[in-house]
Amino acid sequence: MSNDWRQMWKDLGMDLEKHDEFLAPVPEVYGKLFMAQENRPKGMGYFDFVVGDIHGIRVKELVDHKANGGKVVASFCVFVPDEIITAAGGVSIGLCAGAQFPVPTGEQVLPRNLCPLIKASVGFKLDRICPYFQVADFVVGETTCDGKKKAWEILDEFIPTHVMELPQRRAEADKALWIEEIRRFKEKMEKESGVAITAEKLAASIKIANEKRAALQRLYNCRKADPAPISGKDVLLISELAFFDDPKRFTQQVNALCDELETRIVRGEGIAEKGAPRILITGSPMPIPSWKLHAIIEGSGAVVVCEETCTGTRYFETTIREDGATLDEQLAAISERALNINCACYTPNNGRIEDILRLVKEYNADGVVYYNLAFCQPYSIEYRKVEKALQEAGIPVIKIESDFSEEDTGQLQTRIEAFLEMLDK
Amino acid sequence: MSNDWRQMWKDLGMDLEKHDEFLAPVPEVYGKLFMAQENRPKGMGYFDFVVGDIHGIRVKELVDHKANGGKVVASFCVFVPDEIITAAGGVSIGLCAGAQFPVPTGEQVLPRNLCPLIKASVGFKLDRICPYFQVADFVVGETTCDGKKKAWEILDEFIPTHVMELPQRRAEADKALWIEEIRRFKEKMEKESGVAITAEKLAASIKIANEKRAALQRLYNCRKADPAPISGKDVLLISELAFFDDPKRFTQQVNALCDELETRIVRGEGIAEKGAPRILITGSPMPIPSWKLHAIIEGSGAVVVCEETCTGTRYFETTIREDGATLDEQLAAISERALNINCACYTPNNGRIEDILRLVKEYNADGVVYYNLAFCQPYSIEYRKVEKALQEAGIPVIKIESDFSEEDTGQLQTRIEAFLEMLDK
Repeated sequence: MSNDWRQMWKDLGMDLEKHDEFLAPVPEVYGKLFMAQENRPKGMGYFDFVVGDIHGIRVKELVDHKANGGKVVASFCVFVPDEIITAAGGVSIGLCAGAQFPVPTGEQVLPRNLCPLIKASVGFKLDRICPYFQVADFVVGETTCDGKKKAWEILDEFIPTHVMELPQRRAEADKALWIEEIRRFKEKMEKESGVAITAEKLAASIKIANEKRAALQRLYNCRKADPAPISGKDVLLISELAFFDDPKRFTQQVNALCDELETRIVRGEGIAEKGAPRILITGSPMPIPSWKLHAIIEGSGAVVVCEETCTGTRYFETTIREDGATLDEQLAAISERALNINCACYTPNNGRIEDILRLVKEYNADGVVYYNLAFCQPYSIEYRKVEKALQEAGIPVIKIESDFSEEDTGQLQTRIEAFLEMLDK
Repeated sequence: MSNDWRQMWKDLGMDLEKHDEFLAPVPEVYGKLFMAQENRPKGMGYFDFVVGDIHGIRVKELVDHKANGGKVVASFCVFVPDEIITAAGGVSIGLCAGAQFPVPTGEQVLPRNLCPLIKASVGFKLDRICPYFQVADFVVGETTCDGKKKAWEILDEFIPTHVMELPQRRAEADKALWIEEIRRFKEKMEKESGVAITAEKLAASIKIANEKRAALQRLYNCRKADPAPISGKDVLLISELAFFDDPKRFTQQVNALCDELETRIVRGEGIAEKGAPRILITGSPMPIPSWKLHAIIEGSGAVVVCEETCTGTRYFETTIREDGATLDEQLAAISERALNINCACYTPNNGRIEDILRLVKEYNADGVVYYNLAFCQPYSIEYRKVEKALQEAGIPVIKIESDFSEEDTGQLQTRIEAFLEMLDK
């Protein structure tokens, strides 16, 4: 089986040796972190399978999709509208990277003191060790932060990169600009795919995306129970896979898992002990395989019950209205979604503070870990306001600035343990 | 005389003790760096006087202006349209800060790994040691970079801050967004000042600003001569003062200096030796008093002949069309200016590369120093493209990343000297 993939990887122009080196430690890490969990939901089996064959069967599906004339479009942000890609018969894959391995290569073309997510993402393309990048026809970037905005100019040297301009405020003129960007992207997709996007096709793809969001919301709702029926690690993993798995199959599997979790809740069964400290994480995204923070928190006896991040609630809480009858109405509904997501790229962004306070209540969190990717300025500066609001509400908060390396694990462990001890549990 | 200012500073709510501490080293530093230059143009006398009384007479003018019912508006970017402020009877002052002194205070509310310019600017307000900040009625921020965009949210806690959204691309929708922002700012100024902006008033203020730009262009043109009739340090100082001096007086004084310089050029008189290595600096802005890089370069026997920065050509090369007959036409002309300035905040920004190549020719530069403020991501990432273009054109380039502290002076000196030795002179 594995040999089949080697030929496929070779055909995709990958660096097989480097790729082997990159994947080599995954089974051991994954085994320790995920498989070794006691009393783990059986429904995680599907997601274990996806990770176990992470560069195999799903990539083959994409290769076949292309062989059948379909397009594969890579993106790096929850603001890029998957719906338009799907409606043009394309497959959308989110490629944000959370690995340290390709960072040094990224640093050959980008400054060192830049967000590791951006360096890893570009590094994956340059290293030719990500088959998803290799199979993609083109990339859709966005102007959410300075680092990404300017990195797309460099990535475009290596793979065609279409940039969508996300506005920075949410006034009427911004809405007008963004809907123009949505239209421009629709035209781009139609041109690339040769498929005309109709209201019917778009309605179907909005439905698919909303169903995926509803399944993730259902999964997150399960975490509100005490004891939590599933670990934060496992949910993070599922959220990470959401970005590139087949959406219909993924939704089905998440719902099957939720059936199991809801039964667990009725029975009072959990992955953590009842009364274990409950942590909400807020801040920068945690793309695959950035599991470090969850591992430390849950390794210290607490449980992560919610992530207010782009690999968490920001990905699924905001759905798209399905009542649009015409293409114009549908595109307007799609454009509204991005403006309703509270990313630190907007100014002001007070809605995020309201979100965090609401989520702390909904998920009954005992404390908040503010996760900041190193050199991610929007979230780092926004910390002051979030900290103030949480302190006023009497909710303990700690700011953790980190990257994808393991160098700071010991230090983080000490800080997290001290924070957990301080919680009023 | 000085006592008069102490009372004024006190009335402005300043921290007099800290302010004394901040200003104490200035005379010695200024004396060594500027006054000690041999064969210096006499026309620098006015600018020496402005620096010698930097927090005195000009501040008094602003205090008087307010006493007469006028507004004082502080800003931090060449994109903020002075013309609209002036047309409403206001005074526009640019407050970007280039001093290390207030940085630690700025770091109390902002992350440490952030651009020193932003930390210094916010720090000046918190330290209450900048009378210009104290006299300002409000601040106009802009969304040019993540750091500034998010810092305005914090600065607004200490002084009212109006944010203009600069777009990130330059397509039609961006032009529409920006002209809306220009209009919104006009309304803001009219509301704050109680003065209706008419086409006549705006025409007059556009003329004042263009005349200032023309004077600076004339000054820069003088630097094209070999030997350079004026040091790069002196021109940098003049550019820095341009942001808050009275525009008409400033223009007059720059033109008077240019009369002298043009005579010098005819006589072949220079501040540097004929044939001295000629350096173009490009990159992040150098607000007052960030003289370190110029001091090192010129202290090593070279001469800085041009700055492709916001405290250089980006400030004055792009003028505003004066043929607008109606307010709408004038506002459109004002909005065009920002979109024609090649700041790294735009994507793509290839026009900047064209600018640099053109300026190297125009100013007959032997090498380029790419100046990057620490943690300034847009310019740092853009370096790759600029470096490539310069290498292809056979123009030596070195990247210098620095801040406003003196800690790296020795290291920079070594690197700059090695770079100058390498130049084909």
